[in-house]
Amino acid sequence: MIHTIVFKDDRLSLLDQRKLPLAEEYFECKTYKDVEFAIRDMVVRGAPAIGIAAGYGAYLAALEFVNSDDFDKEMEKALDILNKSRPTAVNLMWAVDKMKKLLEDNKDRSNEEKAKLIKKLAIDIEKLEEEMSLDMSKNGAELVKKGDTILTHCNTGSLATSGLGTALGVIKYAHEEGKDIKVYADETRPRLQGARLTAYELDKEKIPFKLISDSVAATLIRDGKIDFIVVGADRIAKNGDTANKIGTFMLSIVAKEYKVPFYIAAPSSTIDFDIETGKEIEIEERDESEVTEIEGVRIAPHGIQVYNPAFDVTPYQNITGIITEKKVYFQENGEFNLE
Amino acid sequence: MIHTIVFKDDRLSLLDQRKLPLAEEYFECKTYKDVEFAIRDMVVRGAPAIGIAAGYGAYLAALEFVNSDDFDKEMEKALDILNKSRPTAVNLMWAVDKMKKLLEDNKDRSNEEKAKLIKKLAIDIEKLEEEMSLDMSKNGAELVKKGDTILTHCNTGSLATSGLGTALGVIKYAHEEGKDIKVYADETRPRLQGARLTAYELDKEKIPFKLISDSVAATLIRDGKIDFIVVGADRIAKNGDTANKIGTFMLSIVAKEYKVPFYIAAPSSTIDFDIETGKEIEIEERDESEVTEIEGVRIAPHGIQVYNPAFDVTPYQNITGIITEKKVYFQENGEFNLE
Repeated sequence: MIHTIVFKDDRLSLLDQRKLPLAEEYFECKTYKDVEFAIRDMVVRGAPAIGIAAGYGAYLAALEFVNSDDFDKEMEKALDILNKSRPTAVNLMWAVDKMKKLLEDNKDRSNEEKAKLIKKLAIDIEKLEEEMSLDMSKNGAELVKKGDTILTHCNTGSLATSGLGTALGVIKYAHEEGKDIKVYADETRPRLQGARLTAYELDKEKIPFKLISDSVAATLIRDGKIDFIVVGADRIAKNGDTANKIGTFMLSIVAKEYKVPFYIAAPSSTIDFDIETGKEIEIEERDESEVTEIEGVRIAPHGIQVYNPAFDVTPYQNITGIITEKKVYFQENGEFNLE
Repeated sequence: MIHTIVFKDDRLSLLDQRKLPLAEEYFECKTYKDVEFAIRDMVVRGAPAIGIAAGYGAYLAALEFVNSDDFDKEMEKALDILNKSRPTAVNLMWAVDKMKKLLEDNKDRSNEEKAKLIKKLAIDIEKLEEEMSLDMSKNGAELVKKGDTILTHCNTGSLATSGLGTALGVIKYAHEEGKDIKVYADETRPRLQGARLTAYELDKEKIPFKLISDSVAATLIRDGKIDFIVVGADRIAKNGDTANKIGTFMLSIVAKEYKVPFYIAAPSSTIDFDIETGKEIEIEERDESEVTEIEGVRIAPHGIQVYNPAFDVTPYQNITGIITEKKVYFQENGEFNLE
């Protein structure tokens, strides 16, 4: 079992995913600003894990400001800072909103009492994510047939959540059920979460797999070597359009062309009912160095321009089904009804 | 101007493409086995450049065996070794076949005379490739409209040929004509020829461009940001099916889905009339370390399995046109007639 997020004695420790798979080190967060840094610099990543980390970040802020006369104001500032650490992750917004509502509803309590309530909520968010992950994994695994070869993109396992994972949770659950599956893992440029993190998890779980460059997927799919594709999501619009790691959309086009089932696995908290379609999703552009350097080694000429969007949006038309902790949503009459 | 292949005083110097873009070093070939290594280890790469290098490799072999009683036998062995250095490159086979035919036609001459003929043929192969490159670039550039944004994959420039290049030759020619083009360059995993080599050439030629991870292409294409796609080829079957760097096929599916013109640029020597369709093309699988290590830095757990095909095959149905030094072939009644 991989312990991604460890909260103990009012300290938050995050398995440092920048160091994996070659070193297993923990990044200690003593203040909410440490948490903000950890999210922004991808010490912790994956939408559910970010939400959980932000919850504990809120509690670290509460500890910091517990003696302040301006507790509510300081907390609002801290929550806004946490909220901006990754623009695309809806779970982050969701966790921050829950914290804000809690403070709003408990205006008249003492700072100590508010801090205790924040701590309880942070722990509840983590537990909720764990339960959701298990239910989702089970729902998704029902779709997997014995002997299937499954393709996945990016990392969506225990490193991205607090439980089994989302897409990788489905894969792990199917494996544990004895479905005799095999996996192809996209390396997932530019940050190589597949090569570094998914390969690490699959290896630890002893699930048979092969690592591939992202663009190898097309040949495997055409040649009938992939039975099932499952990926995670950072944000899902009301109509089912899904923002996920860059490369998801390209994969979905190939899956559609060759009629291979293409599933999204995500907790229902990832569905953002405030946005009608994927067009409204803001896509984070990340630093050029993610493309021009790998582990500090320069792989491109100096001084060039780079376009580095972290996510893309897959239109719902390319998605066979959306696996959540509640159920698997399928299109009906060409539409998803996610509510 | 980039000098990729320099033949002088019976020595072959190859711009070491493993070291680019950070260092410009030449790899000296004193024997044909040095040339075999240089092709296999991708000191020199790109189908046309490999053909040229093999030609000079044959001459280095001739110098080595010029005093041998078994000249013809030794040469046949050497040519077979050169021929096997990269399985997919048809120009290599083409150059080696030309050498074999020359030896066959001149059986009765002295070793010295044969060596001289081989040298002349090697130089002729290089000149032919240069002329072909220019004609091809011109033919392709006619398809480019003023202000077009062009997407390309892998490296197909002066580093891959002895002239302007193939696909990148088209881009350079259009730029030199003042067509005010912009370029997106796929980094091209796993060996990053786009990041390392295409970026180097575009930068040297002062052509405006941005480097992207391969899977960013899908979003750019959908959003109407790409007007024209042009890539090279390692081998083209009689029906137009094209083997090229891994990732080409995936790109072609997206181009077809969103109706963006998708061109192959290659000298007609790349067309292999001995194979009817792409199904007959043997795909080279390369070492796992190309995926698990970058510049010697490990990016995946140790001991895992990798699937690393170097090429994929794009079906002719996905190809708008094939640009050669002779003409641009378009489909007629849903078929290419390449003869």
